Amino acid sequence: MSKETKAYAASSKEADLEPFEINRRKPTAEDVEIEILYCGVCHSDLHQVRNDWKNSKYPVVPGHEIIGKVVSVGENVENFKANDLVGVGCMVDSCQTCSACEDDLEQYCENGAVMTYNGPDKHLDGHTFGGYSEKIVVDQNFVLHIPPNLDPKAAAPLLCAGITTWSPLSHWNVKKGDKVGVIGLGGLGHMGIKFAHAMGAHTVMITTSPNKSEDAKKLGADEVLISKDEQQMKEHAGSFDFLLNTIPVGHDMNPYVSLLKRDATMVLVGAVEPLESLHGGGIIMGRKRIAGSMIGGIKETQEMLDFCGENDVVSEIEMINIQNINEAYDRLVKSDVKYRFVIDMQSLKDS
Amino acid sequence: MSKETKAYAASSKEADLEPFEINRRKPTAEDVEIEILYCGVCHSDLHQVRNDWKNSKYPVVPGHEIIGKVVSVGENVENFKANDLVGVGCMVDSCQTCSACEDDLEQYCENGAVMTYNGPDKHLDGHTFGGYSEKIVVDQNFVLHIPPNLDPKAAAPLLCAGITTWSPLSHWNVKKGDKVGVIGLGGLGHMGIKFAHAMGAHTVMITTSPNKSEDAKKLGADEVLISKDEQQMKEHAGSFDFLLNTIPVGHDMNPYVSLLKRDATMVLVGAVEPLESLHGGGIIMGRKRIAGSMIGGIKETQEMLDFCGENDVVSEIEMINIQNINEAYDRLVKSDVKYRFVIDMQSLKDS
Repeated sequence: MSKETKAYAASSKEADLEPFEINRRKPTAEDVEIEILYCGVCHSDLHQVRNDWKNSKYPVVPGHEIIGKVVSVGENVENFKANDLVGVGCMVDSCQTCSACEDDLEQYCENGAVMTYNGPDKHLDGHTFGGYSEKIVVDQNFVLHIPPNLDPKAAAPLLCAGITTWSPLSHWNVKKGDKVGVIGLGGLGHMGIKFAHAMGAHTVMITTSPNKSEDAKKLGADEVLISKDEQQMKEHAGSFDFLLNTIPVGHDMNPYVSLLKRDATMVLVGAVEPLESLHGGGIIMGRKRIAGSMIGGIKETQEMLDFCGENDVVSEIEMINIQNINEAYDRLVKSDVKYRFVIDMQSLKDS
Repeated sequence: MSKETKAYAASSKEADLEPFEINRRKPTAEDVEIEILYCGVCHSDLHQVRNDWKNSKYPVVPGHEIIGKVVSVGENVENFKANDLVGVGCMVDSCQTCSACEDDLEQYCENGAVMTYNGPDKHLDGHTFGGYSEKIVVDQNFVLHIPPNLDPKAAAPLLCAGITTWSPLSHWNVKKGDKVGVIGLGGLGHMGIKFAHAMGAHTVMITTSPNKSEDAKKLGADEVLISKDEQQMKEHAGSFDFLLNTIPVGHDMNPYVSLLKRDATMVLVGAVEPLESLHGGGIIMGRKRIAGSMIGGIKETQEMLDFCGENDVVSEIEMINIQNINEAYDRLVKSDVKYRFVIDMQSLKDS
């Protein structure tokens, strides 16, 4: 059973996003039915719309930074009730039984987490549809509480950009006094700076662009390190306890590895691409580590949201109407946004 | 003050090793004077002789897998006495005050550990000379006890090949029941198998060469995985708790990364070279880790030797006389040794 819902979708790799009617399932006993208020625009949305990862299924309804209000809940739902302010991130389901799910790391589900869009839909035929839509119906285990003191619009990007940067900072135990570098200042990087700063780390923005210095400091960076400046890089060599690498494309990791202390780790969260040649000596000398990290589990996403509530952390956003989504994508490609577009989903009513 | 000592050295990048007279310092109050009985032949010896790493200083007297007998000790030496069976590995000194030295990881000394050969000699002018020599004089902090039950000839390679593989297995807490892969079967790899097996791990030899299977099993491997066999690689995907990568040259890490479990680590100990392109997605999906590790500290080297004594672990060796060293180098280049050459240093008397 399903009902028609308004959405915005791309019908092919070349197509602009445009109004679309999609089917949403009728809530089951385990489901939360959510009216979507705001939806952040993630770079992955663009990758999926344009089939960059060769796994897109059309029509693509993107959007996995969803903030909404609970409309109704199934009879087995205990933690949510009508009118609750809730969030939905990158996943809407997982097997709940594998070792990853048992460790509260559903994003690494061995049977494949169901992504919020473009994932196999277990309830209806076809694939899942994301948050560029008036409503979504989600299993209660994949719904998050949004702290009431946060601006809900600015909380939307926490569901992907937030958890993607929070998870490695938290998992690798970044703490007060650590020297932490955040590489790259975009949607992910700006959250990395905010979190590292809020965790009490001495936070260094590492960027190729000197013109990002002022902004980085406003976001909470204690220092800015221009990675193209060899002298500056030399001065910081071997001094970082942790590096969060948010660069979204293939790049040369060697200069960053040289910044790590002995036994320290650089975690990649952005570059789902082939990287340039790493020199083995760079990690052998100093027992250094390179790791990857993908979004975060539901439990830690709630922890992150609670931390944001306690520390008044939200994203820097620019609001748009859904009718401007194609223009926003063009600007995203040029990194022309500080630092995340969020769609006011009320605008969908005008489509 | 110094005295002349017989040795074998290369006088230039192109030269064969030949008999050479070197100076050894007279022992200080902190020193142990050692008559060298056996010296293992490490691939680094060849790299240094041929100036592959562009830092060789001639004449090069190689050798950092030294087993010997104590001749005399300085007045402040407490842990060693004449006739003790001792070992000297890759280092003969370090600052003893930096954070690495304080953590018993002298190999990562922030002021630079003094390597056994080709390092800056603090006592005499010039550079240090290694174990292809009748005697060596070493600071007591860099001398190891060799368990009396071990065959001293076969213990020589423990000082480099042994500790290089022991250290990461120990540091990353390899334990009974873990599934551990050792990649590459040479001087390092054969020790990796022996240690992983002795630690109780389910030990898998990972090699390109099916003809190494029988040997690998004799050394302690429970299974052999042929890395060129895509079907086999697929069957083992995502199943390893730890990978010890002993490949000595640049290579494609991606197939090995796919073998790691979520959160598992592959440690490189051999490839001090540029590696082929790593795909970021391979580590991002599954929060996987790649790290490096270089030899080991003096404290853990003694722990490794004690473990070897308790578990009867030594290297597989082929004895040579010093007069055959150039031929041994030629065979080393062709990986034609099972698995380590050890020089009987008595043969030096005939030079």
